[in-house]
Amino acid sequence: MQFSSLDDIRAFCRDLPGGDAPSAEAAARRQQTLTKPPGSLGRLEELAIWLARWQRREIPRLERVTIAVFAGNHGVAVRDVSAYPQAVTAQMVANFANGGAAINQIAELAGAKLSVVPIELDRPTRDFTAAPAMDVDEYLTAVDIGYRTVPPDSDLLIVGEMGIANTTTAAALCAALLGGGAVHWTGRGTGVDDAGLARKHAAIEAALDCHRAILDDTLGVAAAMGGRELAAIAGAVLAGRHHQIPVLLDGFVATAAIVPLTRIAASILDHCRAGHVSAESGHRALLRELDLDPLLDLNMRLGEASGAGVAILLLRAALACHAGMATFAEAGVSNK
Amino acid sequence: MQFSSLDDIRAFCRDLPGGDAPSAEAAARRQQTLTKPPGSLGRLEELAIWLARWQRREIPRLERVTIAVFAGNHGVAVRDVSAYPQAVTAQMVANFANGGAAINQIAELAGAKLSVVPIELDRPTRDFTAAPAMDVDEYLTAVDIGYRTVPPDSDLLIVGEMGIANTTTAAALCAALLGGGAVHWTGRGTGVDDAGLARKHAAIEAALDCHRAILDDTLGVAAAMGGRELAAIAGAVLAGRHHQIPVLLDGFVATAAIVPLTRIAASILDHCRAGHVSAESGHRALLRELDLDPLLDLNMRLGEASGAGVAILLLRAALACHAGMATFAEAGVSNK
Repeated sequence: MQFSSLDDIRAFCRDLPGGDAPSAEAAARRQQTLTKPPGSLGRLEELAIWLARWQRREIPRLERVTIAVFAGNHGVAVRDVSAYPQAVTAQMVANFANGGAAINQIAELAGAKLSVVPIELDRPTRDFTAAPAMDVDEYLTAVDIGYRTVPPDSDLLIVGEMGIANTTTAAALCAALLGGGAVHWTGRGTGVDDAGLARKHAAIEAALDCHRAILDDTLGVAAAMGGRELAAIAGAVLAGRHHQIPVLLDGFVATAAIVPLTRIAASILDHCRAGHVSAESGHRALLRELDLDPLLDLNMRLGEASGAGVAILLLRAALACHAGMATFAEAGVSNK
Repeated sequence: MQFSSLDDIRAFCRDLPGGDAPSAEAAARRQQTLTKPPGSLGRLEELAIWLARWQRREIPRLERVTIAVFAGNHGVAVRDVSAYPQAVTAQMVANFANGGAAINQIAELAGAKLSVVPIELDRPTRDFTAAPAMDVDEYLTAVDIGYRTVPPDSDLLIVGEMGIANTTTAAALCAALLGGGAVHWTGRGTGVDDAGLARKHAAIEAALDCHRAILDDTLGVAAAMGGRELAAIAGAVLAGRHHQIPVLLDGFVATAAIVPLTRIAASILDHCRAGHVSAESGHRALLRELDLDPLLDLNMRLGEASGAGVAILLLRAALACHAGMATFAEAGVSNK
């Protein structure tokens, strides 16, 4: 196991590997020579330079793109916080395996390899309104599964999730670690009605009360108020950093999953970009809190890495221009 | 010639062909059956339904995607309103032909056929601060070139432009037809300094004064204060409507090009979507004025159809999900 204790994770986060500044600088210089006014490709330029920094090469590549979707079940589902029954988590995992879900279509279009990792779906976490969702060993096991899912030679990693009730888990984590109260972080998830939304608020408030003694222990909160797929996402993002793989985060749940890491070291986000902003109401607030500027804003709220999966296409556009355009000198175009 | 007088264009705009409501309704019903919470793919769902409406089929296709980039030169360039010399228009057309520009890379990535149409580059329009940029025959000729550029069997049309000084032309058209004054519509284009920006303002104010007698004649303004590539874009958008081809508009200049048509009939926009919002400052205001919600916001400001070209990828994602996802029944997933 990469991390055999919470202290191992803390130690990694306090000494994070950086990207390669000379590669980023070379990519930035290259952008200045291409046949366009400086800066006129906007974020496509920034993305090419960011990929260069973390891939440690002036001209990045996107040959091995990994989409990792982690699935988990949640004890808090007994509080009737989702529009769908818990069985849907496993049913959707089967749908992923059969190629029928949105992320299957998006992964194929984007030239990415989809890895779906269900984690003990028949053993939901405990209902965190009354007990810790996971103990430390359960949490570390899930982190480790996420870590080991990432092929070290990936050029890009996309992290997403599937888990009935997990927007309640994500909102609970945000409320516990960032403050602001249950209402601020809670949306309608798969589409609950007003009564369902009220049950989500009540569950989160009960969880905050149940775990009030440990709210200043960031990773303790990640175990007690988190979920297995969220822990696995954190593990995958740590693996991305270790192997110098740039990461696109998906929606509210995937972003909330790394909030515990950001409380240890905000620079864990340096190798990450927000693929999109979800219509799930807490996500925009969370991205603002983390100073992440999403690449897409398409009113999506499906999860399963779908928003960040679409954003792969923007990275391909950025790279196509960065690698393929002629320079002013090559094209005989007058520069200022 | 499709339109042998300005009245022909006016008559077409006053009796615009509509899309196919039954195809749109069938596509919307299909979306409700796919394995996701209703509405959770957000704009990807809306885009699939919009494509269905204009392609007149429940499952649209994107096999023949046409990117049309029109190039023109502008008399107002003598007012020193661009950071680049006028020769760059033809140099960039050569760069397009040689495959070295951003749009070449984006078109290849997006599976689109790029048509570049230079229009009398050696005969710039007249300086509209002192005379009509084009007479009616010159304007209709450019509209016709645009119209005939569009293959009637296209599944999707993207319109863009290249023309040194044409953000000044675009801002002049907006100021003349939408009010608000020169400053409201004028940005830095390719990157002029403060003095260049002041020269743009002065040129637009001079043009508004020179042509004040015809400001209520929408198509008269399009000729007198427009440009050949802008007129061609209007022609291409009219061809799209005639052939029932959905259209993605590129940035500020491409959007300004159809403002004259919107003043005759706002519903000319029904078969159009804004591919992106440009960093050129007038574009966001113009999209708001036209009630267009851009698909992308990436701080791009290159023109040459680059922003809308990237947005093709979003339509491919929308279509991949619409056509490829399993239904709840097929996948055995519990629906609410």
